[in-house]
Amino acid sequence: MFGRDKINRNIAILRDYMRKKEIDALILLVSDPHNSEYIAERWKSVEFLTSYTGEGLVLVTDTHLGLWTDSRYFIQAERELYGIDFELHPTRCADSVTISQYLVNLRLLSDKNTFRIAVDGTSTPYSFVQEIHTAFSSISDLDYFDDNYYSIINIPDFIEEIWEDRPVLPTSPILHLSETLTGRSREDKLSFVVEAFKKASCKAVLVSALDDIAWILNIRASDIHCNPVAISYLLITEDEVKWYVQKSPRFDEESLQSINELREDGIKVLNYNDIAFGLSYCVKEGNYPIMVDSASLNYSLYTLIEPYALLSSSVVALEKAIKNDVEVQGMREAHIEDGIALEKFLYWLEGRVSIDDGLSEYEAASKLHSLRAESSAFRGESFDTISAYTANAALPHYLPSPSNSATLAPYGLYLCDSGAHYLYGTTDVTRTIPLGKCTSEEREDYTLVLKGHIALARAVFPKGTAGCHLDILARNPLWLKHRNYGHGTGHGVGYFLNVHEGPQSIRQDFNKQAILEGMVVSNEPAMYVKSRYGIRHENLLLCKKSQVNEFGEWLEFEVLTLCHIDTSILELSLMTADEIEWLNNYNQRVYNQLSEYMPANLKQWLREKTKAINM
Amino acid sequence: MFGRDKINRNIAILRDYMRKKEIDALILLVSDPHNSEYIAERWKSVEFLTSYTGEGLVLVTDTHLGLWTDSRYFIQAERELYGIDFELHPTRCADSVTISQYLVNLRLLSDKNTFRIAVDGTSTPYSFVQEIHTAFSSISDLDYFDDNYYSIINIPDFIEEIWEDRPVLPTSPILHLSETLTGRSREDKLSFVVEAFKKASCKAVLVSALDDIAWILNIRASDIHCNPVAISYLLITEDEVKWYVQKSPRFDEESLQSINELREDGIKVLNYNDIAFGLSYCVKEGNYPIMVDSASLNYSLYTLIEPYALLSSSVVALEKAIKNDVEVQGMREAHIEDGIALEKFLYWLEGRVSIDDGLSEYEAASKLHSLRAESSAFRGESFDTISAYTANAALPHYLPSPSNSATLAPYGLYLCDSGAHYLYGTTDVTRTIPLGKCTSEEREDYTLVLKGHIALARAVFPKGTAGCHLDILARNPLWLKHRNYGHGTGHGVGYFLNVHEGPQSIRQDFNKQAILEGMVVSNEPAMYVKSRYGIRHENLLLCKKSQVNEFGEWLEFEVLTLCHIDTSILELSLMTADEIEWLNNYNQRVYNQLSEYMPANLKQWLREKTKAINM
Repeated sequence: MFGRDKINRNIAILRDYMRKKEIDALILLVSDPHNSEYIAERWKSVEFLTSYTGEGLVLVTDTHLGLWTDSRYFIQAERELYGIDFELHPTRCADSVTISQYLVNLRLLSDKNTFRIAVDGTSTPYSFVQEIHTAFSSISDLDYFDDNYYSIINIPDFIEEIWEDRPVLPTSPILHLSETLTGRSREDKLSFVVEAFKKASCKAVLVSALDDIAWILNIRASDIHCNPVAISYLLITEDEVKWYVQKSPRFDEESLQSINELREDGIKVLNYNDIAFGLSYCVKEGNYPIMVDSASLNYSLYTLIEPYALLSSSVVALEKAIKNDVEVQGMREAHIEDGIALEKFLYWLEGRVSIDDGLSEYEAASKLHSLRAESSAFRGESFDTISAYTANAALPHYLPSPSNSATLAPYGLYLCDSGAHYLYGTTDVTRTIPLGKCTSEEREDYTLVLKGHIALARAVFPKGTAGCHLDILARNPLWLKHRNYGHGTGHGVGYFLNVHEGPQSIRQDFNKQAILEGMVVSNEPAMYVKSRYGIRHENLLLCKKSQVNEFGEWLEFEVLTLCHIDTSILELSLMTADEIEWLNNYNQRVYNQLSEYMPANLKQWLREKTKAINM
Repeated sequence: MFGRDKINRNIAILRDYMRKKEIDALILLVSDPHNSEYIAERWKSVEFLTSYTGEGLVLVTDTHLGLWTDSRYFIQAERELYGIDFELHPTRCADSVTISQYLVNLRLLSDKNTFRIAVDGTSTPYSFVQEIHTAFSSISDLDYFDDNYYSIINIPDFIEEIWEDRPVLPTSPILHLSETLTGRSREDKLSFVVEAFKKASCKAVLVSALDDIAWILNIRASDIHCNPVAISYLLITEDEVKWYVQKSPRFDEESLQSINELREDGIKVLNYNDIAFGLSYCVKEGNYPIMVDSASLNYSLYTLIEPYALLSSSVVALEKAIKNDVEVQGMREAHIEDGIALEKFLYWLEGRVSIDDGLSEYEAASKLHSLRAESSAFRGESFDTISAYTANAALPHYLPSPSNSATLAPYGLYLCDSGAHYLYGTTDVTRTIPLGKCTSEEREDYTLVLKGHIALARAVFPKGTAGCHLDILARNPLWLKHRNYGHGTGHGVGYFLNVHEGPQSIRQDFNKQAILEGMVVSNEPAMYVKSRYGIRHENLLLCKKSQVNEFGEWLEFEVLTLCHIDTSILELSLMTADEIEWLNNYNQRVYNQLSEYMPANLKQWLREKTKAINM
């Protein structure tokens, strides 16, 4: 842990630097050159400087130190920045002041002739800089037309000067996935990409989102914790495919073989840091307009090719989200593997809690890890396991640690949200388990959240329906009681790839992307009561054809997740016959699909747990 | 009825005119200078020329006569244009080719140097012309940069040359509504408007939507069938308010008094046709930017002030949609008046059907009219009554006529969708009434549609929720059976104003407008089975505060409509206890609120009809 002196010293160093460079406002984002959700150690400059480990961004001015983040990170920020003179600016709430608006306000209050805002363009998405420009463009003040009124200065990778012992670029082994595993050849995917940029009248595309690259090339790595990707860029023209990735010191045999396979397919493998040169050369050779991904492209690269760039959404995000038959089958099998581990875990948990011997949240998560690791296809967690007992579960993103972890006892609710990568799929599942006696509030909320979960799982909807249309199905039972949860209901999930994947989502946001056949989404309504308990029921759903009739094409969901839902604390009076039927069928299916892989004692236990209930 | 010779002669006249003016494509919209949903006789030029009476637009070229309209009007178009060589271009369906795209395609196929598209700018909304420009701007063909490649020619009111005996501007009596009826003074509304355009850095606003004008000025008229508005423009600067309206021959005392009242408030009343002059003068005097309503402004006026105009949404639409306390109370009272008439009608209907004496749909609608007209506050229908028996009800917009009207018999379903204006509110209600024995399909659909209706009526939702979030509540019971209805679930409703009013809606469209406290929306899920039956259950809902808690502000609906829902053919096995409880409470409330105004026999009958049902 940091001391407050060290943090203050770092801020002082930054302010010195700012004075030298005449910078009025310096913005540090928790981000990387690819705008990844999870980032490698090398780009954790905010943590290095301030010890803050959450998401968000830091603003430094001469007199102000501000942190912009959402409610998930408030407690963490207060703890990690304890004793530091900083201001917390809440995001994602009704009275949020965005960083862009804040900068505009700062400018309006300043009587200086210039106002220089600095960002590290290498780890700042283009879109972020654009938002600042948009905010300033709304000033009707005539000063706006003065070029010096404000400016955005790019100080690429300036942290390098300050950060001794900065971690190097990760170079985890690169794994090549055969067509048997991906269902679609690299060649075919590359053809798709070329067609897509040609259709948009472009001559090239720069793919900058790490999961897009992994998907196109049919490769996986583990450069980022829980994310099976390689930090790299992919530059594609009609004639050439160039992959910019840190090769040295990837000397392991698997990586060398994977790289050779790519080379045999005519893909040029170049050094990661040569992307700027490669990109400039590409447009110089006349390969423009070049399609770029406005969500993941960083500002430094964008400024290099601005006049030649066509900003677009990811060229493959939708194609990647629609799983092919091989991927669908893989996801189903991954969920059998995962289900076996989960049921073993729940069986073990029940035993350990029954003897009440001081089992910790952390130990429980470790046990789940080791049970999953028994599968030969296991390739690590898809995110850090949220293992949270009673009040801790009221924090949606709580993580236990060896030194800070509650002890489970035979009462109340234990929430476990976890997921894994397998060679042929990714999982994400939450179970809320009554460890013994529960209060009537816990029982009611457990039931209401499950009613919402079931309503979404049962949904039948015409083609064209988007996630924001479906979202209320999961919320309505809670809304009718004036209760709610402060996060989305569902996110896309990758195929042995990132556990959060677009372009679809199931939430209130007006995301127009329809939920289409082959997409995988999570279904995770929840209810949190501060300092008391948290409940979440999460399965992954596969969208598939339902039927075609005079009203058009209909879609429905197949539940991928296989792990029984505990029925012991349900308030049956709140449930309808249809809901109970769904639940009985689901639990029966879990038993049918998993029991053959189980030893007799576990099988017997699961038979009991999946017994049908009656109204 | 027209003969086909007359239609063909009119088309020939148009084509002559086009040749003289070198016009390649002439577009005739079913519209008026204010882009009104319903239009006055004067602007029914499409009907005059072609006899087609539905919505849509007509395209005339040298070789092609095309009609763009949606499925509601297909049968009508085929009948009215029988024997005419025209092509029907369906709109609002998956493979629609818009008129804009069609024009682009025509242009691409033509080898001429020029391509002149003509519109009557006085009855073509600005936005329509903009859509054509947008479609052409997507052509990457270099020819596009030639100014002559295509052009849009404005031929203002050219129909005047062709149409002898064209109806004059309507001049119905103008009614001034006191603050006791509107709850808000004209002065206060005008202040609101001035603040709104100043906030947008404008110096004036042109109000062109007729219901906006009626709302601001607290006046009503009946210039358009079923729409209590005066055809006019309102031009507001900080210093002046000018109302452009046809005065002569509005010589009735009420109109003169209303106009005097406006004058006493300092409002200048000018002639309708002087708007072009007034608008030009306004900007010439430096009153710009001038805010204009992109949805209702016509192309002719827009071209006059293009460099000075700030296109915006309606300056008062949201304010108008949020009913104040007086309006809310008025709406409640209007629904008592309306409920009494409706229950009298249903009682009478049951009697007439029981003796099976050849009652026609048309006669039933007439009876309902006369019962409503018994109220001294009645000011006419808010739309033409849809009185539709069995198969006719499968056409959502069916209208019976004296000469073409089915006979009701004691079996099957009769659908009646009707509404009225009262001095203090507007209604819109649909009841589907079993006239005797119904099939099991009818019973099931009747129940499913009601389940959806109840789910929306019972909704509780956090502030910020939009109609597209709520829509699925009304559809889900049908969707679960792979059934659907092809229209929206709810529209806003005016206060003694247009029965369709924005900006809110409850439908799948991504309309981001939140449903807010004080808004009135319809709740009208439905089910149509072609050639067999149609079912729709419609009430009006008032959005109001529910409660405030740790999750924020909650809203819910109060049902405004008071007319019992028939329980006799419900499939109770499909319903939940909550739904039955809602239905019993609703019917009981109808009895409680209406019975005191009823004679004994009717009261007794209603007591029977509103009797609670059990599962």
